[in-house]
Amino acid sequence: MYIAPLAQLIESFERMPGIGHKSAVRLAFHVLNQSEEAVENFADILLTAKKSIHCCQICQDLTNTEICRLCSSPERDSSTICVVEAPKDVLAMEKTHEYKGLYHVLHGVISPMDGIGADEIKVKELLARLSDNTVREIIVATGSTVEGEATALYLARLIKPMGIRVTRIGSGLPVGADLEYADEVTLIRALEGRREI
Amino acid sequence: MYIAPLAQLIESFERMPGIGHKSAVRLAFHVLNQSEEAVENFADILLTAKKSIHCCQICQDLTNTEICRLCSSPERDSSTICVVEAPKDVLAMEKTHEYKGLYHVLHGVISPMDGIGADEIKVKELLARLSDNTVREIIVATGSTVEGEATALYLARLIKPMGIRVTRIGSGLPVGADLEYADEVTLIRALEGRREI
Repeated sequence: MYIAPLAQLIESFERMPGIGHKSAVRLAFHVLNQSEEAVENFADILLTAKKSIHCCQICQDLTNTEICRLCSSPERDSSTICVVEAPKDVLAMEKTHEYKGLYHVLHGVISPMDGIGADEIKVKELLARLSDNTVREIIVATGSTVEGEATALYLARLIKPMGIRVTRIGSGLPVGADLEYADEVTLIRALEGRREI
Repeated sequence: MYIAPLAQLIESFERMPGIGHKSAVRLAFHVLNQSEEAVENFADILLTAKKSIHCCQICQDLTNTEICRLCSSPERDSSTICVVEAPKDVLAMEKTHEYKGLYHVLHGVISPMDGIGADEIKVKELLARLSDNTVREIIVATGSTVEGEATALYLARLIKPMGIRVTRIGSGLPVGADLEYADEVTLIRALEGRREI
């Protein structure tokens, strides 16, 4: 029913995550209401982002330089690597301003159900970083999902024999949460992870 | 915190209607996960849509031809014009397969609160279509909002003296709706619009 170029635009938006048909139509009309200059600018930003952003050769985080800001910083403690699933997890950790080590982005988790094994994520690249003996500890900060836990166990089994400490981030009740609303698995984890006070 | 080209991309998405920060971040990462070819294709679709789509010289609906499909169709009844607020309203009317006349898209409604008068919407273009005496009826199908009603009244006052019939689409209970859940204003309209059965 829509004229061809509009239908194509709507379809493109519909293919994006979390965008249904009605949102796609609204976004397409929004684009048509913009000035030609604004649309050209947006197209340019899309292409620039896609073309200039790639994975850091060391930590695999997204960067627009060869080696990312964190990997090339002399202020970061290179004896610790925090392993995360995705680039946005690096940002979440950095927001704490607590962690001073380096990162390694796996770009996924091991998930046999989805056909994703260790070879499909950046495990090889992590192992390559451990060969020169500067790394003393690997903190596995994958999500506390089944896949995140399985990936953590896999990495521990692989890396511990190299004489490197492998730790897992704590799991339990989020700060500020009521026990009442916590699910059972979280409570079991919170109990297992109890500490002396 | 994000590297510059990514931050720019996120900002661009955030400026779109109904897209909050988290959605914008998700969309930006979705773009980065696409192949360079797919992103180029999307940029192309954006530009093509923006550059090829403009208003029909007659009805002001969006089109990629000089005169739109409906205005140039010999099968449409040129004695009736249905006046709507926006291009998507034409599509909504066309879906009924009941209306066989032409359209006129106002691209807005008169709204003094937002500083939108008759000159800011396509009223002048509508009047220009009435000069050759082919039009016998104008059906005002603007929304049943305060602005939609005000625009309908304004058009009626302007066009009736030209000897052209001006009608307003019916207002009342939507088909399939329960009285229980209808608001009072809708019920008042439904009562006013009652017909002999």
